[in-house]
Amino acid sequence: MNYTSQNVTTQDFVLAIDFGGTKIAIATADSEGQILEQARLETRAVLGAQQILERTLMSAQALIAQTMMVRGGQCVSVGVATPGVVREKEILLSPNIPGWEQVALCETMRTGLKIPVVAVENDVKAAALAEVYWGALQGANPALFLSLGTGVAAAIVIDGRVLSGAHGAAGEIGYNLRSVSDHDGAAQGRAPLEEFVGGRFIGEGASDLLGEPLSAAEAFAHPDARVQDLVEETLAELAFHIANVSILLDPARIAVGGGLMNSGALILGALASRLALAVPFPPELVPAKFLDDASLYGAIALALRVVQHTDVRVHTGS
Amino acid sequence: MNYTSQNVTTQDFVLAIDFGGTKIAIATADSEGQILEQARLETRAVLGAQQILERTLMSAQALIAQTMMVRGGQCVSVGVATPGVVREKEILLSPNIPGWEQVALCETMRTGLKIPVVAVENDVKAAALAEVYWGALQGANPALFLSLGTGVAAAIVIDGRVLSGAHGAAGEIGYNLRSVSDHDGAAQGRAPLEEFVGGRFIGEGASDLLGEPLSAAEAFAHPDARVQDLVEETLAELAFHIANVSILLDPARIAVGGGLMNSGALILGALASRLALAVPFPPELVPAKFLDDASLYGAIALALRVVQHTDVRVHTGS
Repeated sequence: MNYTSQNVTTQDFVLAIDFGGTKIAIATADSEGQILEQARLETRAVLGAQQILERTLMSAQALIAQTMMVRGGQCVSVGVATPGVVREKEILLSPNIPGWEQVALCETMRTGLKIPVVAVENDVKAAALAEVYWGALQGANPALFLSLGTGVAAAIVIDGRVLSGAHGAAGEIGYNLRSVSDHDGAAQGRAPLEEFVGGRFIGEGASDLLGEPLSAAEAFAHPDARVQDLVEETLAELAFHIANVSILLDPARIAVGGGLMNSGALILGALASRLALAVPFPPELVPAKFLDDASLYGAIALALRVVQHTDVRVHTGS
Repeated sequence: MNYTSQNVTTQDFVLAIDFGGTKIAIATADSEGQILEQARLETRAVLGAQQILERTLMSAQALIAQTMMVRGGQCVSVGVATPGVVREKEILLSPNIPGWEQVALCETMRTGLKIPVVAVENDVKAAALAEVYWGALQGANPALFLSLGTGVAAAIVIDGRVLSGAHGAAGEIGYNLRSVSDHDGAAQGRAPLEEFVGGRFIGEGASDLLGEPLSAAEAFAHPDARVQDLVEETLAELAFHIANVSILLDPARIAVGGGLMNSGALILGALASRLALAVPFPPELVPAKFLDDASLYGAIALALRVVQHTDVRVHTGS
């Protein structure tokens, strides 16, 4: 999948697409990773994979045309970030969009956009790459990117590369067992850690406590003592797991991103104190640079990587 | 520390030293890693670091002379495996040998043996390297080596290289917290997982139950139901941690070595069933090839690596 584009000019640009559970972000970007044009679509996940792909391709083609008109040059590559484990003809572990698991995303983009160079990567691994290129993980080795949002996942960075794992599933710590008495896990379709500390479950837990609908962000900021206890318990559980991850990897730095980082101080505080107690050489702990657009910038990094032959190796969907 | 030996002949050989808590193993080996001559010394850890170094150097010099006499050639490099985290002028996290933490091991060997090329590495990481070179981890990427003995530690192998970590402490899972309510860890000089599943503690726990001294190996084989419960509880705890390690790394294969593997079937059985439940893509699980001499073969691999410029990168004590 490495491709030497032979006539890449300075006008040329890349296309980046981030498929999220609620929004799809699309952008064109220059060779420095600066966004040129962008668009956002509702995912409407319940309506299924096909309409997502069709609307995305239409919007992407319009963005490419608009960028060519404004700037000249051509779109030389496409980077795509998606939930799940990307395979050539399927996307494993992506249950939130009906039909998404059967999508051959790389091929669909290549055909639909008539651009041969397409790199597809898991969204959290893509976000980690953006932090390595332009953000909080520059120069840290090894490093860990931690994404705390609706889901909970990590990406391991070694020598500036994001670790794929033997099956593309490295970093999927949402599946972590919480204790020795936890007997249900991935084989039963369960993700024990994510079901306790993921944003959706924090919101649901707080809503149950108060009898009114609360998001995770609202729970973090809520004055009710029961909600605060829930938040504290959640962060303690998370910190226990991140401490053990840090003992295993001995990272130089951990960057924490994802939607829950709107309550960043609380999260970083809970993690830092546990790391200091448990890890022989506690890593630096910092907020990620890209909080809202992490995976979109990751998709830009993916698209640039395949045409610029940088040292960062990424799974390219084949 | 990479060194191009310019006149390495086929007669030439390497020296390997494995400093263990109870034994020191010393060997010379040919360019294929075959042992030529070997010796074993009691460590006598309580008598301190100085006598260990002196007796080891004396025995090593004798082995080198003997090998030269039998075979001809010269000793071109030295590989050393030791407990702890190897730094140029100290060995961190090596509390079991009084004074060992203050030893500049690389320099001591270089000066004492008058051989300029010395590679020093943590014993578990060295053992992992032997499995990568000649054993159960050939061709697996990523891979995990798990050492279960008096201590409990792991080594992560990525692209055939053993991951050092930012401070040389990657894989030191003996420090793992056991649960969210575990508040004492490395900062208090504690190693919570090792203190529950390490061989010494299994033996002590079983001895307490029966009121007679029992080793871990004896506990594993003992018919008493209370001892069997203890063993089962220990293996369940270990399996919980290895499941979470596997979720994080998504290894292709795990090789399990160390003294406890004399009860290998029991251990592998407990690990395999937990991995199957918890890990999205369960790794292969195999016994290590080198059970008794793993770190000595690791030291041979280290010594060969520095003169043969293989692709396996190892921390060389500087």
